[in-house]
Amino acid sequence: MEKEPLLMLPGPVPVPERVRMAMVRQAINHRGAEFGAVYADCVRILKETFGTKNELFVISGSGTAAMEAAVANFGSGLTIACLENGKFGERMFKIAQRYGTARVVRSEWGTPLDLAALEHELAEGAGMVTLVHNETSAGIKNPAEKIGRLAKKYDALFVMDGITSIGGDEVHADAWGADIVVVGSQKCLAAPAGLSAISVSERAWERLSERRPYYLDLAAYRKSASAKVMETPYTPAVPLFLALREACLLIEEEGLATRIARHRKMSQAVRNAVSAWGLALFPKLDGDHAYSNTVTATRLPEGVEDSAFRGAIKKMGIEIAGGQDHLKGKIFRIGTMGATGAPEILGTLSAIEHALAKQGVRLAGNGVRAAAEVLG
Amino acid sequence: MEKEPLLMLPGPVPVPERVRMAMVRQAINHRGAEFGAVYADCVRILKETFGTKNELFVISGSGTAAMEAAVANFGSGLTIACLENGKFGERMFKIAQRYGTARVVRSEWGTPLDLAALEHELAEGAGMVTLVHNETSAGIKNPAEKIGRLAKKYDALFVMDGITSIGGDEVHADAWGADIVVVGSQKCLAAPAGLSAISVSERAWERLSERRPYYLDLAAYRKSASAKVMETPYTPAVPLFLALREACLLIEEEGLATRIARHRKMSQAVRNAVSAWGLALFPKLDGDHAYSNTVTATRLPEGVEDSAFRGAIKKMGIEIAGGQDHLKGKIFRIGTMGATGAPEILGTLSAIEHALAKQGVRLAGNGVRAAAEVLG
Repeated sequence: MEKEPLLMLPGPVPVPERVRMAMVRQAINHRGAEFGAVYADCVRILKETFGTKNELFVISGSGTAAMEAAVANFGSGLTIACLENGKFGERMFKIAQRYGTARVVRSEWGTPLDLAALEHELAEGAGMVTLVHNETSAGIKNPAEKIGRLAKKYDALFVMDGITSIGGDEVHADAWGADIVVVGSQKCLAAPAGLSAISVSERAWERLSERRPYYLDLAAYRKSASAKVMETPYTPAVPLFLALREACLLIEEEGLATRIARHRKMSQAVRNAVSAWGLALFPKLDGDHAYSNTVTATRLPEGVEDSAFRGAIKKMGIEIAGGQDHLKGKIFRIGTMGATGAPEILGTLSAIEHALAKQGVRLAGNGVRAAAEVLG
Repeated sequence: MEKEPLLMLPGPVPVPERVRMAMVRQAINHRGAEFGAVYADCVRILKETFGTKNELFVISGSGTAAMEAAVANFGSGLTIACLENGKFGERMFKIAQRYGTARVVRSEWGTPLDLAALEHELAEGAGMVTLVHNETSAGIKNPAEKIGRLAKKYDALFVMDGITSIGGDEVHADAWGADIVVVGSQKCLAAPAGLSAISVSERAWERLSERRPYYLDLAAYRKSASAKVMETPYTPAVPLFLALREACLLIEEEGLATRIARHRKMSQAVRNAVSAWGLALFPKLDGDHAYSNTVTATRLPEGVEDSAFRGAIKKMGIEIAGGQDHLKGKIFRIGTMGATGAPEILGTLSAIEHALAKQGVRLAGNGVRAAAEVLG
């Protein structure tokens, strides 16, 4: 086998060696002081990335498990207003349908959320709002703070999926009034896939559902985490916790503000390349919405066949993402999350330039150079 | 730090280097041929350890997640008869209470199950039976085949927790009529903690619940696994899958029959030591029940203080388990699962002999020698 392809996806992303090496060691007992300290380190640093002083737990399960935990523990039986302008907003809606009366507030994917329609749902009695902060399926960043204010005005719980923003973009859960916030390990945290984390406000605890699932019962997580030695209620994915701890320490060492600025620079570089090429970014913005800080979605130029295009890039050892569902064949997406930097971005953009040229696209200008100017 | 303590627990257990090393490599995309092949290897070999030709899925979550998946997908709204003679039987009952009308068929922990009471529940209309095959909390092995026959007679689904027997003891899911069977990664499979697997019979699929959870929705697992390239519905814990594949390959290389015989020898060695010492094994058996093949539960001799006793052993770098809940301070448990062998067992028994002597216990004979005779 050649080396692993470079993953320029909206997750999973390349994992630094130090993080991966943390998983090799011999098994340890997860009911003991050492594991407790690992868990505590993760919680301490993740709280900073969430911008929260609320309780926070690490779940042995993907971001989807954490999304479900949010809805299942605090939304059972409620009317849940689900904001959707992409695939993960849709997923939140699907989850909400299993636990409450789900009301979708849908915009075309990649276009601004309909805050007036949300307010209508809230006025009609929705007790929970779900938002995907950074919608990777469309490359759009949604106005979390504004939605938090609306939720608060109508006394609804505010659930925010920060899976692909936390660790790579500004997130201020407490300041925004986000009651329940989730992240996944394999995105901007640059840890291996398989873990997620969730924070819970006092206001949410007061509304804890009576009927809760078992494995994702956050009351059990709370009890185990508050023991003298921090624990999880059921057997955790120990190697992944060890890796997440290292990934968190790397964030602390880099400094969260520096890390976010670096992510901003990376996505700006990619957007400048797209614009130099004369291609169109996919999202349609208004004053409230912004381009994602961690993934760039671009319209595939007329006549370019997606699988041939991405196949050519993959042959050069780089994976970028296509569109999902009805966006398949219409857009391509470049993730710039975690531990990636100039070499990976410049390599990726060069490969894209080459693949587009091979497909007969006449580009307006030199995207790689435009990116280098941002990164240099 | 000194090296990690030797874990002689009923899980987690020491993980062979080859298995741990599989986790170090760079992240790969979980929507791709390579991951699909990894998943397929796990499924192929796990099916053999389960004794099943049914569909089998690997879940990114602990054994408890798989237990919940069993009940939540197939037991919603049913009357569920939960056999309990230890802590994990009790856990099954707790899970069942969240999804159906749970009826516990309880025996004192470590004593035979009450099959007459089970038959009564079945005659009264229970549509599902849950059984913990190997109850590690008490060191007892329950008569799965007999329970399978009873379930079949009354047309109830049979859910079997094989978390600590599969890979270390005879399990014949199909022959026993076990419709839904689960295993955990960190027990007899000797893989890292964090994964579980579940098999589902055709009979169970026909009774799939309408209301299912999201992350643990087995219909979604089924759909993703049957794609051209095997996938999981949501992001899997990739490093743990890579490790599990190596652990499964090790089982295949050793040969399942050889591996089970080795486990039998290991637990026999420990039981012979206990009996040479003149101590009492904890389980009370009848003709249907047997001592566990993977964990030995022994009564703490009169006057021995549990934490001082296990503390002394831990000082020698070895972790054995105490009792759980009301068995705390009354028993100690030695796991002999996975990749352990004579050095670990003889070392552990020597440490126990020493710790008991230090606590003033006068042992009847030489347990270490008795064990060596089995292992040698």
